[in-house]
Amino acid sequence: MTRPPAARREQFRRFHAITTRWHDNDVFGHVNNVIYYSFFDTAVTSFLIERGLIALAGAGPVFVVVETGCRYRRAIAFPDRVAVGMRVARLGTSSVRYELAVFRNDEAEAAAEGHFTHVLVEREGMRPLPIPQSARSALAELAVE
Amino acid sequence: MTRPPAARREQFRRFHAITTRWHDNDVFGHVNNVIYYSFFDTAVTSFLIERGLIALAGAGPVFVVVETGCRYRRAIAFPDRVAVGMRVARLGTSSVRYELAVFRNDEAEAAAEGHFTHVLVEREGMRPLPIPQSARSALAELAVE
Amino acid sequence: MTRPPAARREQFRRFHAITTRWHDNDVFGHVNNVIYYSFFDTAVTSFLIERGLIALAGAGPVFVVVETGCRYRRAIAFPDRVAVGMRVARLGTSSVRYELAVFRNDEAEAAAEGHFTHVLVEREGMRPLPIPQSARSALAELAVE
Amino acid sequence: MTRPPAARREQFRRFHAITTRWHDNDVFGHVNNVIYYSFFDTAVTSFLIERGLIALAGAGPVFVVVETGCRYRRAIAFPDRVAVGMRVARLGTSSVRYELAVFRNDEAEAAAEGHFTHVLVEREGMRPLPIPQSARSALAELAVE
Repeated sequence: MTRPPAARREQFRRFHAITTRWHDNDVFGHVNNVIYYSFFDTAVTSFLIERGLIALAGAGPVFVVVETGCRYRRAIAFPDRVAVGMRVARLGTSSVRYELAVFRNDEAEAAAEGHFTHVLVEREGMRPLPIPQSARSALAELAVE
Repeated sequence: MTRPPAARREQFRRFHAITTRWHDNDVFGHVNNVIYYSFFDTAVTSFLIERGLIALAGAGPVFVVVETGCRYRRAIAFPDRVAVGMRVARLGTSSVRYELAVFRNDEAEAAAEGHFTHVLVEREGMRPLPIPQSARSALAELAVE
Repeated sequence: MTRPPAARREQFRRFHAITTRWHDNDVFGHVNNVIYYSFFDTAVTSFLIERGLIALAGAGPVFVVVETGCRYRRAIAFPDRVAVGMRVARLGTSSVRYELAVFRNDEAEAAAEGHFTHVLVEREGMRPLPIPQSARSALAELAVE
Repeated sequence: MTRPPAARREQFRRFHAITTRWHDNDVFGHVNNVIYYSFFDTAVTSFLIERGLIALAGAGPVFVVVETGCRYRRAIAFPDRVAVGMRVARLGTSSVRYELAVFRNDEAEAAAEGHFTHVLVEREGMRPLPIPQSARSALAELAVE
C-alpha cells in the first residue's frame, strides 16, 4: 500500500478548532476511529450554520449526507487539541464534496484525511434540488482548483 | 451519480444486532452519520473479541484502523433496531478489509454500506506484521470470493 | 459510606434492553460513567415515544430534563447486554421523577441506579405546565407506592 | 421546587474549556442531558492527567467513579463554547467529591451544576485505599472551605 503524502494545512481554506474529550479515547488510549467523523460533521455544520445554509426546522430543502470516508495516519489522544481543515473539492448541481483533514495540536501534517458529501434534497420525498446561487457562492469560497 | 444497487443480507457472513439509542438521532430526527461508524466498529470488534483476536493490553501486536468509509442510502431513526452485516473482502499479508452494511429492522436492503480496513502492527513503532495463521483462518470464515 | 442495598429487578415496572457498543468502554476497559446516562435517556424516551407523550416538533409543550443522577456499583463492559429498569417515583403537577437501574446481562442486582426528573414546559418561555390527565395515566402505570 | 441560586464562576478553582460539537445537540436542538457528564468527566480527568494522578495502565491503584449528578438550568446549543468550573467539596480518606458547573460562552451564571465522586481503589478487588499525601496536596488546591 503506497499512500499519498499527508495533507498539509496550506491545502485547506477554513479551520475549525475542537477540544478533545476524555472519552474520545478508547481502550487503546487513542481517539477512536468513529470520533474523527464527529470532527468532520462538526466542521461542515459549523460552516453551514455560520453562512445561514442550514435550516434546522420547517419544510424547506435540507442537506443530507450521502458518503463519508477517512484515512487514519497517526494517533491522537486526549488532551490533544485538533484543527479540522476544510475545502470544497467538487461542487455539482445538487451535491458538494468536502475534503477535510485533522491536524493534531500545532502539527503541519494531517493525522487523518477524509471526505464528506452532501446532497441538497427536499425534506419530504428526498428528491435532489439544485443548490441555489447564494449557497454556491459561499461554498465557492472554500473551493480549490 | 448512478449508484450500485443496495447490498442485501445474503451477501454477508455474519450479523451483529444493535439497539439504537435516543441520542443517536440528531437535530434532523435521524441517526447521525457519525453513529454508523460506531455500528461498524462494534461489529468488527465483537468478532475479534469472540475469536480471541484482540489483545487489549500488553506489548503484543494490535490491529489499527487505517481507513473507513460509508455510503448512506436511507434514514434510520430511534427506536429502530439495526443488524450490521459483515464480510471479509480482502485478506492481505498484514491487512484485512471488512465490508459492512447496516440493515434497518427486518429490511432486506441495506440502509448504508461501508468498509473498514485493519492493519496488524507492533504496538511500539507501529510496523506492520504478518497476520498469523490462526487469525487468517478465523477471518477466512467471513471471506467472500 | 454505608450504601443501601442494590436495587433488584422486581422493584421496576418496565425494562428497556440495550446492546453495549465497543466504544462505550473507556481506557480502563469498562463502560464509561457518562454512557449510563444514555441508557437512562434512552429508556425514558422510549417510553414517552411508545405512549405518544413526546412531541418532537411544533409549538406544543415539551418535557425538559431538570435533574439526573447515578450511583455506580459494579463495572459493565462491552459486549455485555444491559436491561434498564424504570419506575415513576414521584408524579407532581408539572414534574415526574423516574428512578432507573442498569442490570448487566441476566444479573438480579443492579450495576447502577439513577434518577431522571422531567418537567413539562411550554416550548417558548419554558414556563411549567400541568401534566395532562392522559399523560398522568400512562405515567401512573410505572408508579410505585 | 425552590432551587438555590445558580453557581457563579468565582465559586470555582479551575476551569476547563470545551468546544461543543454538532451532534451534542439532540432532536430538540439543544445539548443533550447526557453530554454534560462528558464535560464533567473531561474536566476531572484533565486535572488528574495534568497532576500525574491518573495511571492508565499497570497494576496500581485507580480512581473509580461511584456517583455523579447534574441539575440543568438553561439550555446550551452548538456552536456554543463551554467552560467547566471545578472545585473539591470534600476530601475523605479514600474519596474525593468534585463539584462542577457548566458555563455557556461568557456567561457568569452556570447553565448546569453537578457533582462527581471518585474513590481510590486497588485495581484488582476494588478495595478502597487511602489517597496518598501527594494526591491530597494537589486536590487541596481545588478545595473550598
